[in-house]
Amino acid sequence: MLSVQLPNHQYDIIVKRGALNHCGQWVQSLWQTQKIAIITDTNVAPLYAQKVKQLLEAVGFTVHILIVPAGEASKSLAQASQLYDDLADAEFTRTDGIIALGGGVIGDLAAFVASTYMRGIHFLQIPTTLLAQVDSSIGGKTGVNTNRAKNLVGTFAQPDGVLIDPDVLQTLDDRRVREGIAEIIKSAAIADITLWQQLENLVDENDLLNHAELVITGALQVKRKVVEEDVLDHGSRLTLNFGHTIGHAIENTAGYGVVSHGEGVAIGMLAICQYAEKIGQTPKGTTAQLRKMIEKFHLPTSYHNWQTEQLYRAITHDKKARGSQLKIILLEQIGQAKIVAIPIEEMKNYLKVEVV
Amino acid sequence: MLSVQLPNHQYDIIVKRGALNHCGQWVQSLWQTQKIAIITDTNVAPLYAQKVKQLLEAVGFTVHILIVPAGEASKSLAQASQLYDDLADAEFTRTDGIIALGGGVIGDLAAFVASTYMRGIHFLQIPTTLLAQVDSSIGGKTGVNTNRAKNLVGTFAQPDGVLIDPDVLQTLDDRRVREGIAEIIKSAAIADITLWQQLENLVDENDLLNHAELVITGALQVKRKVVEEDVLDHGSRLTLNFGHTIGHAIENTAGYGVVSHGEGVAIGMLAICQYAEKIGQTPKGTTAQLRKMIEKFHLPTSYHNWQTEQLYRAITHDKKARGSQLKIILLEQIGQAKIVAIPIEEMKNYLKVEVV
Repeated sequence: MLSVQLPNHQYDIIVKRGALNHCGQWVQSLWQTQKIAIITDTNVAPLYAQKVKQLLEAVGFTVHILIVPAGEASKSLAQASQLYDDLADAEFTRTDGIIALGGGVIGDLAAFVASTYMRGIHFLQIPTTLLAQVDSSIGGKTGVNTNRAKNLVGTFAQPDGVLIDPDVLQTLDDRRVREGIAEIIKSAAIADITLWQQLENLVDENDLLNHAELVITGALQVKRKVVEEDVLDHGSRLTLNFGHTIGHAIENTAGYGVVSHGEGVAIGMLAICQYAEKIGQTPKGTTAQLRKMIEKFHLPTSYHNWQTEQLYRAITHDKKARGSQLKIILLEQIGQAKIVAIPIEEMKNYLKVEVV
Repeated sequence: MLSVQLPNHQYDIIVKRGALNHCGQWVQSLWQTQKIAIITDTNVAPLYAQKVKQLLEAVGFTVHILIVPAGEASKSLAQASQLYDDLADAEFTRTDGIIALGGGVIGDLAAFVASTYMRGIHFLQIPTTLLAQVDSSIGGKTGVNTNRAKNLVGTFAQPDGVLIDPDVLQTLDDRRVREGIAEIIKSAAIADITLWQQLENLVDENDLLNHAELVITGALQVKRKVVEEDVLDHGSRLTLNFGHTIGHAIENTAGYGVVSHGEGVAIGMLAICQYAEKIGQTPKGTTAQLRKMIEKFHLPTSYHNWQTEQLYRAITHDKKARGSQLKIILLEQIGQAKIVAIPIEEMKNYLKVEVV
């Protein structure tokens, strides 16, 4: 169990195989509330929704299951609006609660709805993808997309608790497992040499899933530390974006679903590390270490449609661009990141080094 | 000037005739930001939007005016969604800011948008109705309506500052002036005997407008005190609802626009006070004092279509109903409120006392 301590809020994250089987007791220990809405999607609902509902009913809660279509398109104001109506129709009040049961889309959407329905009701997370478990279930960012940009609308809001059961990853397809691994590699690379060494000792994805409690906890400890230091995302939290500037650009220009978030991050980490190494900002040999790690888990190291100009335009239109300076994340060494401000034009040099 | 001190946030409210003429310096003293969106409506825009824009441009800001249709219908997710798009198209980032220029609808809508666009950008209020000046510009509640309920969706978020210029009330029609007066009477009745006496010394609405700085400041001091004690609306803030339970029921059942918020509150205060006095919960003569005050400012003391059963149903479906108990606000005496929990059925007795 990890405890997250924020200025006005404290909550615990349970990481334990089989924990889902005890979610009734877990919710009972946290909430006085009577009514609970489980927000989930069409992929996860058939697998776990009824089970969670029954376990909650067994300890006395009244449970509604609200199912949204699986996929990024559900992270919209239109979908949020439908959920507000569903909650109102079921007469949810400020003393009731919402549980997100699903991946990052469900987590972000349900958290946004929970933080805005009647100006905020109770909220718990049960993330069911590796990426959501290590990444989006901690940090307090909620959000929906608009047709102008991803996560353009959202709030900062913390859950009352997070329950992570690595056993649910058994039903996750390989590509989505790898997507989570990319974020774990990133976490190790920017802030945790011990986690990096643990990853080095693993053989492949299956071996990682067998040690899921250990590596998930390691990755969460990195994120917790960074988020506790920077709740409102004004400074050091930026290090979590290692590989993300280029990664997002690839993800967005490739078209939806072609390159996953994790795949983009893997390629982005390598690209930025390679040029940083070339100009002496990162020690020699770091890129090779990173590449070896990425390859072991069968994540991509290159992008078939690399176009420097297109990626540069995608980055300079990204909301992280500020005036004529761009803050990028480089590795001081494996296990330690640094934030470096560069003239925005210099980003082109990082993009000329195509990773192959 | 009043200073509002909350656990994590402090801001000032300026109450000064002619203050609008100095809004450039005011914003300059608060914000480093470059880009500002003035969110206003079709009533207020022709009167004040260009003036504010020019004053802000004169001190170096880039200003966009975003105009929404006047009226409660604009307090919607659809309108918020349009504003998100407008802000994105104008490339607003987290370091830019929004100013609400208008009444309560504009204040609630613009504050909701500001608190959710990119998870929150800077926000200032310039309320232009008496009701917004004394009520919605303080308290940190933002919100939009859905087709299920008013203010069903919202956040708690504080402005960086509020500028109140009573001179703008000269362009407000009498009925909307009185709507604000109802809230001022309420503030005095629940918590400020000095303000009550000041109101007793006034002749009518025009006399009140001539002493607007004094009475607005008095009403704000009441609200500030209550909100500072109870930021997240869990307890004592409830006293601000004096007259509102019945008032809302009248407002909602009458149909939009027939009975204004302030008119409903005036009738609601009298009704609840009358029965409380009858059963000895409020001292004899209190209702007569309240009635005299309400009549002086030409607010209604009765409702032509009073139907006990209909009002009771409206109240028990109201989100403020909790299980079988209802918390209502009574006057201990003029200038002091108390929160009393009653079985929800007892509300019918309060509703049988038709105010005439």
